[in-house]
Amino acid sequence: DRVVRAARGSALTARSWQTEAALRMLMNNLDPEVAEKPSELVVYGGIGRAARNWACYDGIVSALTALESDQTLLVQSGKPVGVFRTHENAPRVLIANSNLVPHWANWERFNELDRAGLMMYGQMTAGSWIYIGSQGIVQGTYETFVEMARQSYGGSLRGRWILTGGLGGMSGAQPLAAVMAGASMLAVECEPGRIAKRLETGYLDRSTNSLDQALEWIDAACKADRPVSVGLLGNAAEIFPELLRRGIRPDAVTDQTSAHDPLNGYLPAGWSLDHAAHMRVTDPSAVERAAKDSMRLQVEAMIAFHRMGVPTFDYGNNIRQMAFEVGCADAFAFPGFVPAYIRPLFCRGIGPFRWAALSGDPEDIYRTDARVKALLPHDTHLHHWLDMAREKIMFQGLPARICWVGLGDRHRLGLAFNEMVARGELKAPIVIGRDHLDSGSVASPNRETEAMQDGSDAVSDWPLLNALLNTASGATWVSLHHGGGVGMGFSQHAGMVIVADGTDEAAERLGRVLWNDPATGVMRHADAGYEIARDCARETGLTLPMLTEN
Amino acid sequence: DRVVRAARGSALTARSWQTEAALRMLMNNLDPEVAEKPSELVVYGGIGRAARNWACYDGIVSALTALESDQTLLVQSGKPVGVFRTHENAPRVLIANSNLVPHWANWERFNELDRAGLMMYGQMTAGSWIYIGSQGIVQGTYETFVEMARQSYGGSLRGRWILTGGLGGMSGAQPLAAVMAGASMLAVECEPGRIAKRLETGYLDRSTNSLDQALEWIDAACKADRPVSVGLLGNAAEIFPELLRRGIRPDAVTDQTSAHDPLNGYLPAGWSLDHAAHMRVTDPSAVERAAKDSMRLQVEAMIAFHRMGVPTFDYGNNIRQMAFEVGCADAFAFPGFVPAYIRPLFCRGIGPFRWAALSGDPEDIYRTDARVKALLPHDTHLHHWLDMAREKIMFQGLPARICWVGLGDRHRLGLAFNEMVARGELKAPIVIGRDHLDSGSVASPNRETEAMQDGSDAVSDWPLLNALLNTASGATWVSLHHGGGVGMGFSQHAGMVIVADGTDEAAERLGRVLWNDPATGVMRHADAGYEIARDCARETGLTLPMLTEN
Ligand SMILES: NC(=O)c1ccc[n+]([C@@H]2O[C@H](COP(=O)([O-])OP(=O)(O)OC[C@H]3O[C@@H](n4cnc5c(N)ncnc54)[C@H](O)[C@@H]3O)[C@@H](O)[C@H]2O)c1
Ligand SMILES: NC(=O)c1ccc[n+]([C@@H]2O[C@H](COP(=O)([O-])OP(=O)(O)OC[C@H]3O[C@@H](n4cnc5c(N)ncnc54)[C@H](O)[C@@H]3O)[C@@H](O)[C@H]2O)c1
Repeated sequence: DRVVRAARGSALTARSWQTEAALRMLMNNLDPEVAEKPSELVVYGGIGRAARNWACYDGIVSALTALESDQTLLVQSGKPVGVFRTHENAPRVLIANSNLVPHWANWERFNELDRAGLMMYGQMTAGSWIYIGSQGIVQGTYETFVEMARQSYGGSLRGRWILTGGLGGMSGAQPLAAVMAGASMLAVECEPGRIAKRLETGYLDRSTNSLDQALEWIDAACKADRPVSVGLLGNAAEIFPELLRRGIRPDAVTDQTSAHDPLNGYLPAGWSLDHAAHMRVTDPSAVERAAKDSMRLQVEAMIAFHRMGVPTFDYGNNIRQMAFEVGCADAFAFPGFVPAYIRPLFCRGIGPFRWAALSGDPEDIYRTDARVKALLPHDTHLHHWLDMAREKIMFQGLPARICWVGLGDRHRLGLAFNEMVARGELKAPIVIGRDHLDSGSVASPNRETEAMQDGSDAVSDWPLLNALLNTASGATWVSLHHGGGVGMGFSQHAGMVIVADGTDEAAERLGRVLWNDPATGVMRHADAGYEIARDCARETGLTLPMLTEN
Repeated sequence: DRVVRAARGSALTARSWQTEAALRMLMNNLDPEVAEKPSELVVYGGIGRAARNWACYDGIVSALTALESDQTLLVQSGKPVGVFRTHENAPRVLIANSNLVPHWANWERFNELDRAGLMMYGQMTAGSWIYIGSQGIVQGTYETFVEMARQSYGGSLRGRWILTGGLGGMSGAQPLAAVMAGASMLAVECEPGRIAKRLETGYLDRSTNSLDQALEWIDAACKADRPVSVGLLGNAAEIFPELLRRGIRPDAVTDQTSAHDPLNGYLPAGWSLDHAAHMRVTDPSAVERAAKDSMRLQVEAMIAFHRMGVPTFDYGNNIRQMAFEVGCADAFAFPGFVPAYIRPLFCRGIGPFRWAALSGDPEDIYRTDARVKALLPHDTHLHHWLDMAREKIMFQGLPARICWVGLGDRHRLGLAFNEMVARGELKAPIVIGRDHLDSGSVASPNRETEAMQDGSDAVSDWPLLNALLNTASGATWVSLHHGGGVGMGFSQHAGMVIVADGTDEAAERLGRVLWNDPATGVMRHADAGYEIARDCARETGLTLPMLTEN
């Protein structure tokens, strides 16, 4: 097995910090501390890969190493396919992953093309080289739980507990986020290795394979008001209905198994891991069917909790759609987390902004943390987050930080980091990016664009414009993906990453990109009729021709 | 009714030639000489529009008029949605039209969103402002007929005739292309107005509503070897089977009704135009069903001709798919025109390169014609085309020229035109573009990417990379569309247009864009395994990492 780890320090292995950044972030995605299955190039989210195969990985590395500052590398589903002359203000890498013409955009066709060596599943930040481990998702989940608490429990989760499934790449962030938000958590996970990994990294407090034991711990924690997270080895499709049968009432219910990928992401009820592994090879369609049938059992239990008045939401894994496809007519009875809790943030361009220290030195991140606090002195919520993150979150791979900030703040932070690099306050440049799950970068009717006010859920012009504009504005790399999060056919989304290398040219690009990128989100939500977004557009002086004129 | 016509001459109405060009080409698309239904903003190809509605048109015009040389306008399905600061080498306009998340990418959903005022069908060059009237399609059709003659009739169509359907925006080019290629043509068209328009512009020789009369003329023309084109007022779903019943054998069979759009583009057999217009409003799904059933009748006749050994091909309107959907299992028995005749050209980046004279002066085009001949002195086929085009093709709207040239030639022509502008040999700048149907710009498994050698027909990473790279290279406007030609769900494709305004900066951009754009086509075909493309890549020195290394 090859072990990949990004270079550290301030010496270049490529010809510029732009390409060095792409190299280190690609490698960082495959760092065993970061990736779920590095030997198969799988970073997270089912089979989300950083490169199509090892030959393509090597090809990308040598192309990036040789790339000049007026050249651009094209990557097609994880394969380096061409190097072209562009210019200094153009991106160094342009990426398109997993895109299929709509009529053929399903897992069956994708898997065929994947097996034929013609495609790769890029998920969101796996194939676009800006996954930073579980931390990336901790804050999103934390913000979601906090907002849920605000809406349902008067702002406090004291003595309460949340039921969920999955302790994988992103789902593994749930227990930590719950505890940070003040709640206990019961997380059902079928792979012992995943539970072990979360215990190791401190994201999970305890584990057991006994439901009774788990419930006892949770009960005690709630009574003592000392939140605990428990990983239960089991199958969510069995445990969720069992809790219901026992008349047990969680205070909130969600799920983050990899339901978006019924072939590889969800263990059918009653199956052993070995049996599933065998069947995936010998009879893939039987696996898909069995997985969806099991998801239906789980979703039916979730609907029952929802009907009992328990806050229940889909956490973006498309499990409702899968259950719906095998006959669960009410699958969409409970909402997705975006319309329930996240959309008001998107209306102001707020989303999962993140950055990593290319030096590899945690001190660089701590210095940026301090700078963020200084630049946003009145955002106590953000200060609290930064303190907790520093205390509770172990870095995985290159040290990185995430915080949800929006239009008007992102470019200020980016420019400030660039100044810090220029003044030598940091040991190496900073790379700045975000998830594809963001305000202006995604169309995904079962998740980010569920239930849009004007009914434009399925219109994907918006993420395409976002990618084109980021390219035109000079991001360092830009990506266009299909099928992330919710699976083939269900989403189109765009990524962007930009390097703050301390130069004046970078400052120009940062000023444009980190303004324009969240601004497309405000634009998209203003166009859909959201007043918060229209107000934000007015306050920030955006030019939105058909709205300005009215 | 508003009448729109682009400004002529060398005086700017906008702030630069880049935005002036976008303005004039948008307006030119709606010029009554160019557009099929200008009052509804419909340019060609069913309901392919230039702007979503008149308010949006006005919004685009005022945004473009005010746009600075470091700003970029975003257009979402024909609506101007935002103006952002970019830089001088970025596109001035970025366009995304008709894109839907795949699972929802069908006419039903599109029509709903269209009615709700949230979308517009952009076809290919309608919503991307580089349609130049029927001429644009004449050469493509001419090249196709010539290649068909080469493969089936020893290179000559002397005394032969072609059967087809449709005399609309693009389909109206068929009779002229046939006669240019030396064949007679029987074109069945159901709208008298369309026939009249083709007679007026000289694209069609005669018309009748009697099949007997039409056949008599064709027969006489074939015997005398004096090619004639005949427009027959009738329904292709009735006439094609009728010819078969009569035992009449054309020398080639194709069709260009707007079958890709069963609601608006195809008249069901036995229906009057008025009845269809009424039903489209009152019972759209009945129209779609009836249209598809009629297409099946027509396709069954085409299959019968194919089985008789008559060269029969789908001309890119998706009629086989439509027939297939209502039970015609053999619909794909005959090939599409791309794998049959066009792919070898695509392998060398050859496709529908075109340019227009912003001055409005035909002399400007004649001067560029001469320059093209001088730059490509040995291409006698091209010289013949340019002579015939000058003699037989009336300009529609701004004078324009099309000729199929590939990688290595496009940028030479573009740079030469730029020099001519700089030296004052032309009265105003030249705008250079192409169809979305081109070598590297489209994924369309029933048309441009049908039967790819490696099975990658449905992979749409390629057109997305094409759009991103053209944006990074500095095209003047770049577009990403869905559903052009073959309809919703069946294609994704990208457009690019670039202005030669005579400046050195434009020369830099032209050199990059007009090289990179066709190069992505060579790359895509080389990646799919075509030897012609691999040879071309070697000859032109492309850097294709995974191929160069092998
Ligand atoms: N912001 C969001 O919308 C968001 C955030 C996080 C995760 N997600 C979604 O959640 C899903 C999980 O993401 P991930 O990165 O953690 O994927 P992952 O594949 O790394 O983890 C999923 C985990 O679920 C476990 N699992 C599968 N079937 C199970 C079953 N029947 N019972 C119990 N456990 C089971 C797997 O063993 C695995 O550890 C994805 O669909 C992702 O898109 C969405
Ligand atoms: N290069 C290509 O692949 C290519 C080139 C040209 C056209 N096309 C396709 O051909 C189609 C036509 O394009 P267009 O721009 O001419 O569209 P259009 O709508 O302007 O013209 C189509 C014509 O077909 C006529 N028609 C409809 N139903 C008929 C019937 N049953 N019998 C006889 N006539 C009928 C209409 O009256 C209309 O004039 C489109 O699907 C387009 O995508 C493809």
